[in-house]
This record gives sequence, structure tokens and C-alpha cells, in this order.
Amino acid sequence: MTDPLFQKACIVGIGLIGSSLAHGMREHHLCTEIVGCDLSQDVCDKAVSLGVVTEAGPSPSKMVSDCDLIILSVPVGAMSAVLLELNVHAAAGAIIMDVGSVKGSVAEAADGLRDDLYFVPAHPVAGTEKSGPSAGFASLFEKRWSIITPLENPSTEYKAALTLVEALWQGLGADTVQMDAQHHDIALAVTSHLPHLIAFTLVSAADDIESVNEKEVVKYSAGGFRDFTRIAASDPVMWRDVFLHNREAVLEVLGHFSEELAAMQKAIRWGDGEALEKAFSRARGLRREIIEAGQEVDLPNFGRDQEKTIEEE
Amino acid sequence: MTDPLFQKACIVGIGLIGSSLAHGMREHHLCTEIVGCDLSQDVCDKAVSLGVVTEAGPSPSKMVSDCDLIILSVPVGAMSAVLLELNVHAAAGAIIMDVGSVKGSVAEAADGLRDDLYFVPAHPVAGTEKSGPSAGFASLFEKRWSIITPLENPSTEYKAALTLVEALWQGLGADTVQMDAQHHDIALAVTSHLPHLIAFTLVSAADDIESVNEKEVVKYSAGGFRDFTRIAASDPVMWRDVFLHNREAVLEVLGHFSEELAAMQKAIRWGDGEALEKAFSRARGLRREIIEAGQEVDLPNFGRDQEKTIEEE
Repeated sequence: MTDPLFQKACIVGIGLIGSSLAHGMREHHLCTEIVGCDLSQDVCDKAVSLGVVTEAGPSPSKMVSDCDLIILSVPVGAMSAVLLELNVHAAAGAIIMDVGSVKGSVAEAADGLRDDLYFVPAHPVAGTEKSGPSAGFASLFEKRWSIITPLENPSTEYKAALTLVEALWQGLGADTVQMDAQHHDIALAVTSHLPHLIAFTLVSAADDIESVNEKEVVKYSAGGFRDFTRIAASDPVMWRDVFLHNREAVLEVLGHFSEELAAMQKAIRWGDGEALEKAFSRARGLRREIIEAGQEVDLPNFGRDQEKTIEEE
Repeated sequence: MTDPLFQKACIVGIGLIGSSLAHGMREHHLCTEIVGCDLSQDVCDKAVSLGVVTEAGPSPSKMVSDCDLIILSVPVGAMSAVLLELNVHAAAGAIIMDVGSVKGSVAEAADGLRDDLYFVPAHPVAGTEKSGPSAGFASLFEKRWSIITPLENPSTEYKAALTLVEALWQGLGADTVQMDAQHHDIALAVTSHLPHLIAFTLVSAADDIESVNEKEVVKYSAGGFRDFTRIAASDPVMWRDVFLHNREAVLEVLGHFSEELAAMQKAIRWGDGEALEKAFSRARGLRREIIEAGQEVDLPNFGRDQEKTIEEE
């Protein structure tokens, strides 16, 4: 067994991603000791009792002074406040990594950090709709992409920090890729932020149609609606912060979506079957590519009917 | 074992739903003999070689004369033409059932049917994103709702036909419910048609954003986008016909969606975190209800990570 990459890590924000990182780092021997912080004392207690971390408390200042790795897995809007605190209390030479879904605003928030702290912004494109310290599992990042958006820092120490962070993700089974923060923010607006916004909106709208009651929405949800409720069940605070901090990119891709929706609406109103069929025919190839890239299961209905089918055979 | 409900059924349109019905009816001994029709000779050949039906040909007129059950599982836009043909060739007393996703237009199309043919419109709220005769499986309708929208026909014979059709669905493991066609069409516009339209639109829009290429959309699709590609991979012709034949209801619910989306957009533009968080907090309870109603699996990520998690344990 090779030596762990880090001696002591502090995970600030012990939710789905934070706890998955802790489980994964422990399982793959990437870090000798893992402690945690969370504003909620309940979350701290639960994280310790579940064995996610060995020790946890509400204040990063008391936990990070002997850590060589500090992971920020808090909502994007909370990053600045945590960074201010770390700037006072983190040990010289510590690597700070965030896992936020928006990278431009986080890079800005890190602007005044001490020269002897090495901040590496990262975003693992992985998750589930569950939240909290009991939702994490070690394999969450396997075969998923972790996007690193390095700061402009040509120093040898910063390069070494980048290498260590990439090794961490690879140790968790992820692939890594580097890009600039601005490109990350538009790409993820397309593949993650807009889909979440649309799912939240659809669920809200369904609530709003008087002639169809909630009971019916539940009963007949297997017609397609239920798919949307999965990502719409994601953590509301985390997603609020994503939209507040990636406004420009989200509004841009939302503009494209609205144009396309208007075209669909017009085709329906005017009975333009040809336009509809053409638009509807685009998606199969793309889904096939996603499955071939290992980012989706190759089973009808996401494999939901597997048990039924197996029983039958 | 009780006697089968029907002696000989003809399935017109041997796709996902038609072939699932054939498998299910055979498995549950609901019908003695099952033949089929499909415009495509390839589909006919495949359906016979897969054992979906014992015999198949392109023309209903040649197949239905001795059938006591005729199932129309063709796209909604093809119903009228098939009904015209059945009106000439179907045996007196035959029950005709369709399984289309729109019920108002089908009822209209059935308006001139002979008095000795009993037409029962039905819609099983079940499916997968796969199409064709090899996509079907017997358990597709288990624990799903099949909605029956009876015609206005007070005769004893029609009541008996309704009872038989309900017994058929229950024999396949489905629950049945009766409602009028107009209410069906607005309820399903909410739980099925709008979700499909939105998914098709999102996939089209993603294709449209120059700064993010398709490769990136594929790579980072686990951020949420991949969920939408499932229903957007559904049969384009079937869905074209749904929107052409349920125009009014779809445009109405689309109006609600667009209002809600405009409100979300405004909240993002103006940085109204409170409004966003409030809107985002609605969905969890609804998803919980859908799971409790047995219409969704109780697993994070639709159970996609199950294999990963099991390996880990």
C-alpha cells in the first residue's frame, strides 16, 4: 500500500458530498485522519456516530490548525465566510479545495487568501437527490468527472497542490479535467443548473393547475413526471446558491431554452407535425452517447423495472 | 385456473405497449390466441419470431374477422384509419380497446362505429423509452394505473365490455380507474405530455449552445441532464401525435409552466434567494408521496448507483 496523500483533512460541511468524500478517502487510504465541521451540531454528532469523521464541531477555526487538507463542501454562498475564517486559522502550506457547483464566484472569494495557502477549486459532477451526512457513500465519484479550475498561480507549490488534488480524485475513482472557471460555469449551466431549474419549475407548475389535484399527479406520475421529481428533490439551499452565483450563465442558457420552447409551442399550436417529429428525433443518439460514455445505465426506465423483469423470467 | 377472458385477440401496432400486452396476456392466461398487425413487415416478422404473436400481417382486415378483442396500440394519429377498416371487417360483438395517450380525439374517431362493436378507450400509464416489438415485457403494467374513459353507451352489452376490459387490466397487475376523456387529457397533459415536451425541448436547446460542445454535454451529463434524455429518447412519431391531438390541454398546462419559469427567471435576475428557496422546497414531499404510492423506486439516483454501492459493501 502506498502512503496516504494527506495526513489530516477537515471537511467543512458534512452533507452528501462531504460525507461521500470522507467515506471514499478512508476506503482508498488517501488520508490518515479525517475530521469535520458543520454549522449544525446535530449534523456533527451524526457524522461522528456514523463514523464519517472521527471528530466534528461547528467552528472551522478550532479544527483546521493542524490540517494539510481542508475541503469546503458548503453551499456556494457560504464559501466566502469560511475562507475568511480559514485565512486566519489554517496552517501554512495547507491545501484548500472546494467542491462547489459554481467556480467563478468561488475563485473571486479566494482572491485575498494568504500566499502560503493553496486553493484548488474543484467540482465533482456527481450526486444524488439525498442530503445530509447519512446520504454519502464511497463510490459516488467512481467513473464521474471532477472538474478542476486552477487559479492563476505559477508557483511550484501551487503546481504540487494541483497534482495532489488530482491524485485525490483519481484515488476516488474519478477522472479529472482542467478548464477555466468561466467555461465550467457555462458548461455546467447546460448540463446541470438548467436541468435542475426546469425540474423545479415543472414540479411547481404542476402544483398550480386547479383542475388536476395532487393525488392525480402522484397516481399518474409514471407517465414521465416522476423523473423530474428526482432532481427537484435536491437540497433547496444548495441550489438557491447555485442560481444566485451563476446568474449570467444560467440566464444565457435559459434564453436558449425559452426560444426552443416557444418554437415547440408554435409547432403545437399550428399543428406542425413535421417540426415536432424532427425536434423529437434528436435525443436518441445523444442518450446512446451518454450510455456509451459510462455516464448512464444501459437499462430501460433507468433499470427501475429490473426487479419486475427478473421476477418474471 | 379460470377460463381466459378472450378467445382471440388481434394487436394492431406491435410496439412497446402492444408487445407488452401480448406477453402479459399470455403469461396470465387472459386470452387463448394472440395475433397481430403492423404496417411494417419487418415488425410482423420479428413479432412472430420472438413469439410475441402467433401470426402477423400488415392488414387488420385480414386478421380481425374472428377476433373477440382488438387492441389498437398505434400512434394516436393512426387510430381513425384503423377504426374505419375495423368498422367493415370486425366481427359482430367484438370489443375494441385502444391504449392511446390521448382520449378525447380517439372517442371522436370512434363516433361512427357500428352498434355491434364495443369500443373501450383505455390508457395504461406505463412505458419505457424503448420502442418496437422487442421492447415489451409482461410486467410493464404491474402496479400502474390504467385509465378507462368509457363512451356514453348505456347498453348492457357495453357495460359487459367495460367489465371485461377492466378485468383484462387487473389480470395484467394494473389498477383501473374510470374518468371522462376531457379530464384524462388535462391530467395526463400535466403528468406525461408536458414532461415529455420539456425534456425534448431541453435536449434540443443543449444542442444549440455554441460555446458548449456535444462532447461536454455527454461528459458532464451526470449533473442532471442525463435524466431528461431518458424520456426524450421515446418514440418521436408517437409523441408527435400526442401533441397534435391534445393541443388544447397541452397549451394550457404549458401556459402555467411558462408563467412559473418567468417567475424563476425574474428571481434569478434580481437575486431573490428567498423566492428560489421557497419554490425549490416544494418537491421533496411530492416525491415522497410518489414513492409511497408505489409509482417510483425508493432509491437515490433511481437505483443507478446500486451496483456501485453493493460492490462497496
